[in-house]
This record gives sequence, structure tokens and C-alpha cells, in this order.
Amino acid sequence: MALQTLPAVQRAAQIQALGEPLAFLSAHPVPDPTQLQPNECLVKIEYAGVCQSDMHARNGDWLVKPSLPRIGGHEGVGTVVAIGAGTTESPVSLGDRVGIKWIARVCLRCESCRTGNESICSAWCIHGFTTDGTFAEYVVAWTYYVTPIPKLLDSATATPILCAGLTVYKGLKRINVPTGSWIAIPGAGGGLGHLAIQYAVAMGLRVVAIDSGEEKRKLCLALGAEKWVDFKESGEGLVKDVVAATDGLGPHAALISAGVATPYIQACYYVRPTGTVVFVGIPPTSIPFQIPFELIVGKELKLLGSAIGSRQDAIEALDIAARGKVVCHYSLRRLDELETVFDEMKRGEITGRVVLKI
Amino acid sequence: MALQTLPAVQRAAQIQALGEPLAFLSAHPVPDPTQLQPNECLVKIEYAGVCQSDMHARNGDWLVKPSLPRIGGHEGVGTVVAIGAGTTESPVSLGDRVGIKWIARVCLRCESCRTGNESICSAWCIHGFTTDGTFAEYVVAWTYYVTPIPKLLDSATATPILCAGLTVYKGLKRINVPTGSWIAIPGAGGGLGHLAIQYAVAMGLRVVAIDSGEEKRKLCLALGAEKWVDFKESGEGLVKDVVAATDGLGPHAALISAGVATPYIQACYYVRPTGTVVFVGIPPTSIPFQIPFELIVGKELKLLGSAIGSRQDAIEALDIAARGKVVCHYSLRRLDELETVFDEMKRGEITGRVVLKI
Amino acid sequence: MALQTLPAVQRAAQIQALGEPLAFLSAHPVPDPTQLQPNECLVKIEYAGVCQSDMHARNGDWLVKPSLPRIGGHEGVGTVVAIGAGTTESPVSLGDRVGIKWIARVCLRCESCRTGNESICSAWCIHGFTTDGTFAEYVVAWTYYVTPIPKLLDSATATPILCAGLTVYKGLKRINVPTGSWIAIPGAGGGLGHLAIQYAVAMGLRVVAIDSGEEKRKLCLALGAEKWVDFKESGEGLVKDVVAATDGLGPHAALISAGVATPYIQACYYVRPTGTVVFVGIPPTSIPFQIPFELIVGKELKLLGSAIGSRQDAIEALDIAARGKVVCHYSLRRLDELETVFDEMKRGEITGRVVLKI
Amino acid sequence: MALQTLPAVQRAAQIQALGEPLAFLSAHPVPDPTQLQPNECLVKIEYAGVCQSDMHARNGDWLVKPSLPRIGGHEGVGTVVAIGAGTTESPVSLGDRVGIKWIARVCLRCESCRTGNESICSAWCIHGFTTDGTFAEYVVAWTYYVTPIPKLLDSATATPILCAGLTVYKGLKRINVPTGSWIAIPGAGGGLGHLAIQYAVAMGLRVVAIDSGEEKRKLCLALGAEKWVDFKESGEGLVKDVVAATDGLGPHAALISAGVATPYIQACYYVRPTGTVVFVGIPPTSIPFQIPFELIVGKELKLLGSAIGSRQDAIEALDIAARGKVVCHYSLRRLDELETVFDEMKRGEITGRVVLKI
Repeated sequence: MALQTLPAVQRAAQIQALGEPLAFLSAHPVPDPTQLQPNECLVKIEYAGVCQSDMHARNGDWLVKPSLPRIGGHEGVGTVVAIGAGTTESPVSLGDRVGIKWIARVCLRCESCRTGNESICSAWCIHGFTTDGTFAEYVVAWTYYVTPIPKLLDSATATPILCAGLTVYKGLKRINVPTGSWIAIPGAGGGLGHLAIQYAVAMGLRVVAIDSGEEKRKLCLALGAEKWVDFKESGEGLVKDVVAATDGLGPHAALISAGVATPYIQACYYVRPTGTVVFVGIPPTSIPFQIPFELIVGKELKLLGSAIGSRQDAIEALDIAARGKVVCHYSLRRLDELETVFDEMKRGEITGRVVLKI
Repeated sequence: MALQTLPAVQRAAQIQALGEPLAFLSAHPVPDPTQLQPNECLVKIEYAGVCQSDMHARNGDWLVKPSLPRIGGHEGVGTVVAIGAGTTESPVSLGDRVGIKWIARVCLRCESCRTGNESICSAWCIHGFTTDGTFAEYVVAWTYYVTPIPKLLDSATATPILCAGLTVYKGLKRINVPTGSWIAIPGAGGGLGHLAIQYAVAMGLRVVAIDSGEEKRKLCLALGAEKWVDFKESGEGLVKDVVAATDGLGPHAALISAGVATPYIQACYYVRPTGTVVFVGIPPTSIPFQIPFELIVGKELKLLGSAIGSRQDAIEALDIAARGKVVCHYSLRRLDELETVFDEMKRGEITGRVVLKI
Repeated sequence: MALQTLPAVQRAAQIQALGEPLAFLSAHPVPDPTQLQPNECLVKIEYAGVCQSDMHARNGDWLVKPSLPRIGGHEGVGTVVAIGAGTTESPVSLGDRVGIKWIARVCLRCESCRTGNESICSAWCIHGFTTDGTFAEYVVAWTYYVTPIPKLLDSATATPILCAGLTVYKGLKRINVPTGSWIAIPGAGGGLGHLAIQYAVAMGLRVVAIDSGEEKRKLCLALGAEKWVDFKESGEGLVKDVVAATDGLGPHAALISAGVATPYIQACYYVRPTGTVVFVGIPPTSIPFQIPFELIVGKELKLLGSAIGSRQDAIEALDIAARGKVVCHYSLRRLDELETVFDEMKRGEITGRVVLKI
Repeated sequence: MALQTLPAVQRAAQIQALGEPLAFLSAHPVPDPTQLQPNECLVKIEYAGVCQSDMHARNGDWLVKPSLPRIGGHEGVGTVVAIGAGTTESPVSLGDRVGIKWIARVCLRCESCRTGNESICSAWCIHGFTTDGTFAEYVVAWTYYVTPIPKLLDSATATPILCAGLTVYKGLKRINVPTGSWIAIPGAGGGLGHLAIQYAVAMGLRVVAIDSGEEKRKLCLALGAEKWVDFKESGEGLVKDVVAATDGLGPHAALISAGVATPYIQACYYVRPTGTVVFVGIPPTSIPFQIPFELIVGKELKLLGSAIGSRQDAIEALDIAARGKVVCHYSLRRLDELETVFDEMKRGEITGRVVLKI
């Protein structure tokens, strides 16, 4: 069941060897709609976001590596152009605008899925990692796992919500502190951070933004952060400065997406007793997390790992964005600029999120 | 208001210099009942338990040190023999049998106290650390903070519940997993561990006990543990062995009271995804907690620090013991044997808990 | 894909008209295995339990009525003898012993399913109500929704866990009070009640059993209830007697499966402040629930409706039974005795559960 | 320890007989500061709010009646002008601006207090009910239970937060649904309702306001409600209209402060499955709460009674108001107009809250 006649070939960016530049293919075969399995669908990608994880996948610097060759990318918006024969009860129809996420499908029946933790499904499948992803014109996805895009949200704006937005939204949901509690967001001016500010404000939390530079300071305050701490200016005094900014007691929680260890460690020092630190970033394996035991026990810290989010989390995150509470700051690039984007990302030069027009 | 004529002097074990042996005083002044403040009471100690924390206090090997000179000890049972003049609405009366805990008093009005986290009161006072403790015949305590001992529980048996029992009980309460979930308890044959097994079983959890040696194996299984892993025999294979012992998925949680780092780190590896690791022990500052970020985020771990417990936790922990669900294995010693006990503790030679008959 | 050659016809008990006796068919067609849809399976029933809800379905005395004609029954254990062609990733195989529950299938994608409340799926399908049930030799079920029976549990014993056990287990899970808390169970000697006692004890709760008569008293105490209140003897004094039995403060919670209103109302009076009352029974529409507002607000009551349970709840409930913590008291009957069983049920003459050998 | 020389007599409104008009005293004795007990303080009242409960106290139409004679009122702001001799560690000082709440003091040691439910303290004392209240120039209060007023909040504006605001804030806190969930607020234009809209919005909830009339409609929408349902216009169709206003599924929760039964019953019908209905109002004993059991169980409803709030809740509620998120609409009246105010309240003529300038 296909929407239209599809081309035979497409453009795609493929990981062919770990640590090597991506291969930009101009005549990669488009998956054959007649070969789709039940519950599979083919999505014509409009926009694809670029994530730190895409760089880790290409570099192979996590313990787990992508299977090769692999078309990368796991954050995108497009249109359903074909649905596998034999699909019954599909929640999406031909022509629907849908979002592609890190997770391509889950089993819905392992213990993790049964207990509401589908982000940790023991049989998950990952776009850009164990199945092809969004750095191409067409991607195979699963009808019950793609996320419908709300009418009020345009496709480019919706794109970064599917991974960056979802990740910080789900991390914030886990915190569960009263309205008006303080939350610290290191990297607040970055791709995940600037979305986290807005979700936190939408939840009724008060934000102390931590980042550096005048441009990011302005952005963070404009997005609703009440306090700003420049980590370069604070230097060794960062913990003290964050505590001072939050009634002298420290924030109730912190959400951290950094790719380095320091912000996670600092957070354990500046959150107030019984404070929560949510870990959503994954620095390379070579840099471990390390703190004194006294800190964990003496302050009764809660350290929570949080990975991606569920179908329900994605729906909620998009709904909040569709109501105008969260707006992603992104810059549009072309697919063939991806290696340049990775370079800029590495050098920390990107403000907000990069979205590729496919 | 005193129950009887009190002697002028008493025996007591006092920390006079950090890192030095305790001074055993035979004629230390008994606190004057007429000088007690409102809400203070004087408790004649029957039994005092010996805790790892007492050794840390004497050694001064935590970041926070006791104020000196200081009579140590923070786990004891005795009788109220005097109550400060001007005390109104005392929940205890002269002659009542009461328990002394790590926390001597809290303010009941700081943010921690108001939000149900009195164990983290910003103005707390600690027996054996910031106020004198139970290694003496008489101790000044607070009427609203001592814990009444249930009639069915004899004093020596009740003693280790006031700190060791309370600590593991509160740690287990925080886990909040369904009945029949697996919990790993490293150090299961030790003072805290063997109580933790019993509290866990009373809560409907299934226990995999981790420790070493035939004596401890027998004790752990007799107390209700279903599985046993000898960490010396397992060696490098410990994580694998614990996972194998728990349906191949790993335990849902672990409660760890160790004074070294390894068991905490191993737990992060063997708990199943979304598993909880509760930290109740405090290894010295020189040995930090260190694990890869991938583990925290990828498995969505919950790492929870847990300190002591509240008045309510103490009442519940004693009630469970009074109903025969938890029985402490202890050996009785004399106050003047305390340094010998510390030596044995250091060498890991103590099974169960040591209780001093005062 | 079928296990064996199946007979063409079977025995079955069918609701043909609401309020009329069941029709006992001796040559009802067996569903054709070649006509099964993907994810459907055919289960050869060994045992089927009899539930109050079966009587309500036959009588049509709820607002919602079964579609007719309908083979009743929603609690059973049998063997998978056929699986629909085109089924992929079936969690069960031919020959597996599986349990049939009230819910036959859910959509796994509506808001209820996505948020972990599959028991309230907006598109559920119910055995014995909207699809045929277990009062027959063969029933069509769904591969991803039947529950594997643990090896250690024989089929007849497992049967009542699939509805009666599941219902009370899930209701108890929702209570979430500390170990050693008191729970009142009215109707404690009945089909659901006597299972609830055992699940509550397995969870570490203390049970005050409420029912009437010496036989039930003995059963309840033997199953682990600590206190007994005979509601006929107590009469008007029941609330006072239950409070007296539970430290003078009242139980922390109550789980009620009654088909009449009084026990629900009494529970609101006898639970202690902030107490929880879980509703799992459904008296006929003609008898409403009615209490003063002062009681709800002044005591900060939590009144929780609880329906059936999820796949995960069923797995947990069976696991607890397989470990010997819960044993159903049942009497075996034949399918053609069903109307007699309904009569006895109506007259309150049944102790424990009735299980039909099919 | 008194701030200034105090007058010997004061004006006060006293309940002398249940169901009779209040007595307006012009020369009632001012409590003698030298007779204050430890932890008591004397507060010079600036403003006192008028609550439905004041009318119930005067009328004696609840099961529990005030002790007589009794100066009414339980919501006020004033200045500490004296503190009882022997008070140690008072959290407030002479000259501090503090709030008086429904609860005058709690014991901080009963099971309710120990478990964080101080609003249900078994030994509480109530202003205007069991101890004198705020309808006078001076009131005796307790140093550890009065609430400091944030600097940014003027006294008249702060007054209705101490009871009306606190009650709805605590009720909303108990709901615990994700950001962007729908909440229905019947009586949204009234004293509690219009505060509830604002607290709900501050928490990130979406509000469907239910009330009647153009004035209230405008107010509710101006305060942030997204949908409006006029219950008079909807009539029998109210449930349908509320469901239609909330994505066709019904709101996730409802907070109800009504003095009649209908809104509570309707809420059970219109909330979506697993929805929460919070009860904060108390209709007279003669009008019970009544609904079908099928509704509670079939939809897995959560019905939660919620009474007042704790010291922490009051601090949070005031903080939210001080940050401008919640502004009470009130009209200023004189103490001697109190009977007139009660008449208007009875006739439902009051929009927002009435505050008396003392």
C-alpha cells in the first residue's frame, strides 16, 4: 500500500567504518514498499536533526557500536508513503506526518515494556544504530512507534523535539518536585539545554541556567531562566555561585546533558539535601563519573539515569511544543554539510540545534 | 524531676584526640538533672551498640569530625531517669525504656524537617559526634526524639535496631519495588547485612546474599536469603553470578552498607535495567565512587543515598522486630573492651553486631 | 499451525438471553484453526473458574451487558493447540500451558495502554462478555495476552489466580503502605478474600479479617490473618471492633470485593486518617456508594477503584503463588453444574473458589 | 517579651450560640502577654479573610461544632507583638509579619505528624473553632506554626492565601499528573476556584473552568483557564460538554470546593479513566456523596479528600503568590459587616474573596 510511485534511488549519509567520515551516497536504493513487513511503514523524510549521539555512533567511542554499514540519524519528521501489506490496526495512515525517534520499535512484551519502561526494552531497535536512520530520503519505520505530528507544529520545528526535546522532557518528568522548585541546567544554551529551560518553565519550575558567553546568557534569560551563572567566570566558585543564586540552599534538582564529567560532579555538590541529579548525557567511556560517597549518603542524593522517552512522553513533549510553550532554536543545513556540522559540534560552536533539510 | 538519687560520677569512653585510642574514664561527672533544659532528659544506659561510624568518629577519617572531647556511641537502650524542668507535653515519662539513635534532636521546622526528611535536618545534633553519646552510664537526650521500646522487645535485642536496623530498614523502604522482587545484599553476614536480609524478607522481597565463608552462608540462608553468592569464590565473576542467581536478569535493587567501594560499583553492573542501588555505607573520603556514565544512563539506574531514618522509621523498625520478624545476632561485651572491638571490626572478624553491657 | 487434529464440536455453556439459565451445548462448533487471525491462538481449556462477574454477565444487571449469544467464563488454564497463520514473534508456542484472563486483548497504543493502565484500555476485548470465554473446551485467545503458567503451579491451582488472584493482588499493590501496616479485608473467607489475605501477608501487611462463622474464622487465621472480626456478632459495633483490633487507630487500608454496599461504607469509617479504601467489587447499579463528605475530606481518605490487572500483574501474582505464598482453596465441579454453582453463590454458600474441570 | 504597650480591650466578633448571629464586642479583653505560654505569641491582626467554614462554624451544621464562646476566623495576617516567656528557638521575632491559618498548632509527634500529614494531626487546635481566631484585633498563636509573609506580598493580598489559597494549592499538589494535563475546576469564579485556576496554571496544567455568568467567564479566562463551561447553560449536558472541551476524553483531574454535592458527582462522570477527583469542600452532613460503584471500579477512579495544608504547603503557596503567579481578587469590608457578608455568601453573590480590614 503505497502513496505514490517512489523513486528507485535516494541520497543518504552512511557510516561505513567507525571513526571515518560518513559516505555521502547519491544513488542508494530506496526500500521496496512491496517488501515491507506487517507493521512496517516507509517514511519520506523532510527534516532530520543532528545529535551528539550521531557523532558518537560515527566515532564508535561508546562501548556499544552501530552495526555497519548504517545510515545514521534518529530524529526526523516526514510523511508516511507506504505501509507494509498485512498490517492491521495501524495507528497511522498514508500521508500522515510522523516523527522518527531514537527508538525504532520495542517489543511491548518484555518486563521493561510491561512495567512502563519501554525506553529500556530488551529487544529495542535503534534508528541510525541497529536499523537505518533519518540521514536519507526514505526510512523504514514501524507504524505503532512513529509519532503523529500535531497540526499546529511545522515539520522543521517539530524535528528536534523527537530526540532532544523528548530526552529533556522525560528527564524533567522524573524529577517530581513541587511547583516553584529550583532546577539547574548546565549547558543551558545548547541544543538540549535551551529546550530544557522551556520545558522546565512550562512545568512551573524555576531555572538557574549555567553556560558561558553573552549570546547564551541572553537566550537563556529570554527563554525564561530566572538566574544565570557563567561557568567560565565562576570557575572554581561555580558551586558556591549556583547555591547563592537559589535562595542560598542550592537547587532542588539538576538536569545534565553534558558530554563531559564536570557538570555532573558539580551538580552533586550544589543541589540541596535530598536533591535529584538527572543524567541524560553520556560522556565517552574513558571519562568516568566520580564523587565521594559522603556526598551521596550524607545529602541523601538521588542520581537518576534517564534515557530517551516513551511514545507517551513523545506525544506530551510535542503537545507542549504545539501549544507554543517550547520553541526550538535551530539552523537549517543541507545533508551534505553533516561532516562540517560534526566539526562545529566538537568545537562547541553550535547554539541551539542543527536541522538538515533533506 | 528525677526518678532517683543519681551517682555523682560514671564510667565513660571518651574521644580525646582523633586517631588516638579512646580514654576510659571511671569518674566522669554525671550530668546534673537540675541543669537539664526543657525537653531534655537523662537516660541511664543499659546497652550500647558498636557501629562502624563510631570507629570513623574516633579515627576522624571523614570530612566532618566530631567536636572534642566527646563521649562516643549513638545506639543504645536505657531508662529515663530525669526530665528537664519546664518540659511540657513530653511523650516519655520517668521510668520509660527508650532508645537513643544517631540523631539526638532535630529542629522540626527547617525545610528538610517540614518536607518529611528529618534525617537531613539542617540543625540536627548527633550523639557521639556533636553531643555526648551512649558509651557512658548516663546520656542527655531529648524527650521528643528518643524512641519508646516496645514491651515485647528486650533491651539488648532492641539496641542494634536503633542504628543498624533503622538504617537498613529506611534504605529498604526507599526502594519501593513489587513484592517478590529480588534484592542483593552485599555484606549480608555482617552487622547491617544480616538485619537487612530479615527486613527485606519481612517486606516480601527475595534476597540474594553476598558475603564470604561457610558460617555467613549458613546464617544468611537461615535468615531467609534464597540465594548465596560467595564473593571470594566468584571473584571477577561476581556480577555474572549475581545475575544468574536472579532469573538471569539481575536483582531489581541492591542495598549496600560496605566501607569499601567495590560492592557499590558491582551493584551498578548486576542490577537489572531501571534497577535501584541504595547507598547506606560511607567508605572513607579517600576512596571515591566511580562508574561509567553509560551504565547510569543506558540502564536508567537509580542511585539513592540513604541516611539513618526518621522517628517514624525507628518506630516501624522496632515494631517489626518486636513481632519477631527481625532478630539481631549480637555478642555481648564490656565497655572497656571497646578498643578490642574496634580492632576486630577493622579486621572484619565480627559476625552480627557487638553490644556493650554498660 | 495446529498441535493436533481437533474435534469438530465441543461442549460449551452459552448465555443466550439475559437473566435466563445458561444453555448447555454439547455440539458447539470448535473454532477453525485455519481461520485464526495473526496473533490469535486456540487454547484447549483444562479448568475454568467461576466468578461473581459471570453471574452478573448472565443476569445482565450491570449497566454494560454482554453481546449475545456468548460463551461465558473469563478465568481458565489450558494448552495452546493452534496459532494463527501470519503470527510473528509470538511469546507462546504450541503446547504451552497458558492462562486466560478477563481481558482477552488490549490495543497497547491508546493513552491508557501507553501510560501503563492497560486494564482500562479503550479498545479492550473481554472473555465471556465481548468475545467467547472459558466455559467451553476451546477458546480463541491472543498470543501476546495469555499468561504463561509457571512450571511449579498445577493447572487447577493456577486457575483462580487468573482473575480472583490477579484482582486482589493488583488492588493491594495500589495501596503502597509500609510493611507492618494493617489492612482490613471484609469477606475474608470468600473466593477473593481468602486470596487477598495471603497476598497481603506475602507483602508484609498485617491483616484483620472480617467475615462470619467458625469455618471462615479458622480459615482466615490459618492463612495468616492476625485478627478476626465476625460482622454478624459485631453488628452495629463493627467499626469500633475493627478499630480496636488495629492498635485503636484503625487499619491503614481496606480492600473490598463485596457485592453489597455496606462493607465499603464501613471501611471509610474504620480506616485511620489518610487511610486508603480500594474498591474491587461492583455491587449492582441499583445499590450506590454513599457517604458523608466530611468523612472524605476530614480524614483525607483515598478511595481507589481497581479493575483486574495488567499482564505484568498477572505474572507477578502467579509467581507469588508458584512460590507457595498463596494457595487457593477451591472445590472442583463439572461444567454442567454451573447453574447450581450460581445458585450457591447467590446464597453465599461457597467457601473459597469453584473451579470447573472442563 | 512584648513589642509595645498593648491596649486592655479590643473589638471582636464572637460566636455565642450556634445558629445565632455573631456578637460584636467592642471591649473584649486583649490576652495578657505576660500570661503567654512558651511557644505562644500574640499577633495584632491587620486583615482577616472570610471563609465558608466560618459560616459553618457559626451555624453549627457540621457534625463537629466549635466550643463556645469562640471568636471566629482562621485566615489572617498581622504582626507579632508579644512572645511567651520561656520560648526558645522561636522561628519568628517581635515585629515579624505572619499569617494565621485554620490550624493553630499541631503536636509534631503523633503518627500523622511523623508521616508528613500534619493537616490531620490527632491533637491539632483550630483557630475560630477550638481556640480564638482572627475576627478580633489580637489573637494568640504559636510561634512555630504561624507562617512568615514574604516581603513582596502585601498583607491584604496575602490573607486569602492562608486558607483559600493553601487549600486549593495542597489539593492540586496531590493530583500529580504530567504537565499539560487537563483539570476541571467547578466554581472556578469563586473564592477558592479563582485561586485554583491560577495555581493550576502555575503548575503547568490546562484548566477547564466551570461556573456561570459572563462576569465569571471573563475572570476565569483572564486568569488563564483555556476552556469555559457554563453549568447553567449546559444543564443536563454538563458532563458531555466538559468531555468535549478536553480533547473528547475528559479532564485528567478535577478539584472541587463546592458546598453542594452535584459538582463532585459530575466530576466522577467527566474525568477520563484513572482520573483523580480531589474533594476540598464539605457540603453539610445532610447532603451525602453518592455514585454508582461501577463508575469507581470501571474507570479506576481516584477520589482524594484533601484538608487544608501543612506549614511547607503554606510557604510554597505564599511563595508562588509573591512571585506574581497568583493574585487574589478580593473586596475589603469592615469587621462589623460580617453578618452581611455571610448573607451574601449564602446567596452566592460574592465574586472572589472577602477580606476584613481589622
